[in-house]
Amino acid sequence: MALIVQKFGGTSVGTVERIEQVAEKVKKFREGGDDIVVVVSAMSGETNRLIGLATQISDQPVPRELDVMVSTGEQVTIALLAMALIKRGVPAVSYTGNQVRILTDSAHNKARILQIDDQKLRADLKAGRVVVVAGFQGVDEHGNITTLGRGGSDTTGVALAAALKADECQIYTDVDGVYTTDPRVVPKAQRLDKITFEEMLEMASLGSKVLQIRSVEFAGKYNVPLRVLHSFQEGPGTLITIDEEESMEQPIISGIAFNRDEAKLTIRGVPDTPGVAFKILGPISAANIEVDMIVQNVAHDNTTDFTFTVHRNDYKNALQVLEQTAREISAREVIGDENIAKVSIVGVGMRSHAGVASRMFEALAKETINIQMISTSEIKVSVVIEEKYLELAVRALHTAFELDAPARQGE
Amino acid sequence: MALIVQKFGGTSVGTVERIEQVAEKVKKFREGGDDIVVVVSAMSGETNRLIGLATQISDQPVPRELDVMVSTGEQVTIALLAMALIKRGVPAVSYTGNQVRILTDSAHNKARILQIDDQKLRADLKAGRVVVVAGFQGVDEHGNITTLGRGGSDTTGVALAAALKADECQIYTDVDGVYTTDPRVVPKAQRLDKITFEEMLEMASLGSKVLQIRSVEFAGKYNVPLRVLHSFQEGPGTLITIDEEESMEQPIISGIAFNRDEAKLTIRGVPDTPGVAFKILGPISAANIEVDMIVQNVAHDNTTDFTFTVHRNDYKNALQVLEQTAREISAREVIGDENIAKVSIVGVGMRSHAGVASRMFEALAKETINIQMISTSEIKVSVVIEEKYLELAVRALHTAFELDAPARQGE
Repeated sequence: MALIVQKFGGTSVGTVERIEQVAEKVKKFREGGDDIVVVVSAMSGETNRLIGLATQISDQPVPRELDVMVSTGEQVTIALLAMALIKRGVPAVSYTGNQVRILTDSAHNKARILQIDDQKLRADLKAGRVVVVAGFQGVDEHGNITTLGRGGSDTTGVALAAALKADECQIYTDVDGVYTTDPRVVPKAQRLDKITFEEMLEMASLGSKVLQIRSVEFAGKYNVPLRVLHSFQEGPGTLITIDEEESMEQPIISGIAFNRDEAKLTIRGVPDTPGVAFKILGPISAANIEVDMIVQNVAHDNTTDFTFTVHRNDYKNALQVLEQTAREISAREVIGDENIAKVSIVGVGMRSHAGVASRMFEALAKETINIQMISTSEIKVSVVIEEKYLELAVRALHTAFELDAPARQGE
Repeated sequence: MALIVQKFGGTSVGTVERIEQVAEKVKKFREGGDDIVVVVSAMSGETNRLIGLATQISDQPVPRELDVMVSTGEQVTIALLAMALIKRGVPAVSYTGNQVRILTDSAHNKARILQIDDQKLRADLKAGRVVVVAGFQGVDEHGNITTLGRGGSDTTGVALAAALKADECQIYTDVDGVYTTDPRVVPKAQRLDKITFEEMLEMASLGSKVLQIRSVEFAGKYNVPLRVLHSFQEGPGTLITIDEEESMEQPIISGIAFNRDEAKLTIRGVPDTPGVAFKILGPISAANIEVDMIVQNVAHDNTTDFTFTVHRNDYKNALQVLEQTAREISAREVIGDENIAKVSIVGVGMRSHAGVASRMFEALAKETINIQMISTSEIKVSVVIEEKYLELAVRALHTAFELDAPARQGE
């Protein structure tokens, strides 16, 4: 008999019919003998409806009051799901973040969980009840309602699993697991049975939108086995866990991640003096623009070129800031490019295998794809290429690292 | 500087625009130097929307979970009103029933308030904040969310006023006060400046829907001065208070109440033996039918006639029960009549004035209106008449007891 925390997002509970389907699923697990804690989001669209009401009053609603309002979204869902379970003869009880008590700090709209009181939940589970908890919300030490910010329901699920020392935290989504890459780009992409927290973090931060980064970090920190599953299809999903046994069969690369959300800026002919990187990035940071990749090559002729990427939405803004900086530090010119894409190979296996990067570059070279920037971490190699080559690059790397699914019978 | 509790119902906060208007009104009072606690209902339609969701899952939703859900209605309104106040530079803070802490019993969907913690509220008022409290809801000793049942927001207002020893509890509605009778029936009906709790209770129970009976009882019990006002029109409204000074000018009758909601049943030729009233009304009560007026005349020929009224919705059901009883106790016949109306004169003044009833009967006789049943209490005389004479009767009584407004200039 296992203790499982199951989290269902807004789409999975988007209608009364879907809530009934979720109740059926929970019932099956319960009948299988597992203890179940369910975490749910607001019905899809509800949070936006509530924020819409608030912004009719003020463009910048008071954060404390916005939390009072927005937290009602999940409160409705927990009640509906508990009703649907009880209707099916499954004893159930719902709790808001405040009722559990999920203690957070007082940073309204983006609070962090400090502590979870597991007493009530344990008593309910012992009494055979399914506990339905509102995701995304908590309460601060003064009794004020707080929310964890968008996507915070995943974090609630993981935090509850950690507090209860659950055997597994299952995140139900609209995909049946984590894939080697986006199946829309590479039809031969395969569902991964397992992936490590580190890999998942890299995949998530690179555009695989399956899980919230924060919940993966949290799960990794507290070593909560996390499983991504499809809400309404059967299947084992993908288990995200620590990298316990490094087996011989472990693939070098787990997946190919990519995104088209970035733009590249280069400032050329920068006098190569100490502190120049700060002079360039300081104003960017001051303008609240986040920088992703940064590349600076060795100088020659006492000048250097400095290149970095920002989110495409910040591109125009960043360009202006950088042109101002260029004048101030007497750089030669500023050039920018919005038509880029970032492609990364991710895998804990590359730690113990040399030559992964060169195999990547070779695969791209074969397709005559020019590499504009390179950046590496312990379990990832990222390159920036021209955007139009993105699909070609991903498919080439998917094949080169032997991730393609074997052709099925009849294909 | 007074401490005022102001309650705004669902229609008064039905749209964001109206919430802004309420904020304007509250702001004016605050600027006048008063301390303000505002109690609000859910935006009109919201409670029904939520119940609609619940009944999609179950015809009889679990009461505990229904409260979790329905209580979100007011939670949205308190946040919006607090935002609207803060936008206007009025410091404000919102509290749910649980946050205040409005402690109730555990009778979900119809809970009763046991105790109100006034500590937080007093601290906020002292700090110059307007406190916005969710009506209609509380929390039981186990931390479960409860609701007081429909119309419970009035009760929340009165209970808060009592706990805080407020100078006045103002109930904002869609009428500008309590009238001598329904102005749609009698155009010369006048707004009352003052009315006693007892009179208001009689008026309310007889169909004047201005205030919830429970909140008037509550206000009377704790002697909270209650004022009925129009949400969006200026005016003094009607003050409901204890009958402190019985002045000479006090009218004998404060108002004429009426309703068409009842039906009359008579069982004739009942053997006049002890316990017969119980034999007749016992089965009616067992069928969950509430009885209003009961009249039994003196017997002759050892049989008697027994008449009572029930809500018109219960008429058919009551008729069936009564026919069964008639067979069992060998009564002669059962007759019923749905086309009746009840008209009552109400006034604490009648306590000290003889002849009020005869003046009433005289006025009806003049219009040749036949009286079918009579029932009296210390401050009320009610008669049942044929429904078609209702308007005529009300107008005749309104004139006979000198309640008509003087003709205005130019009329």
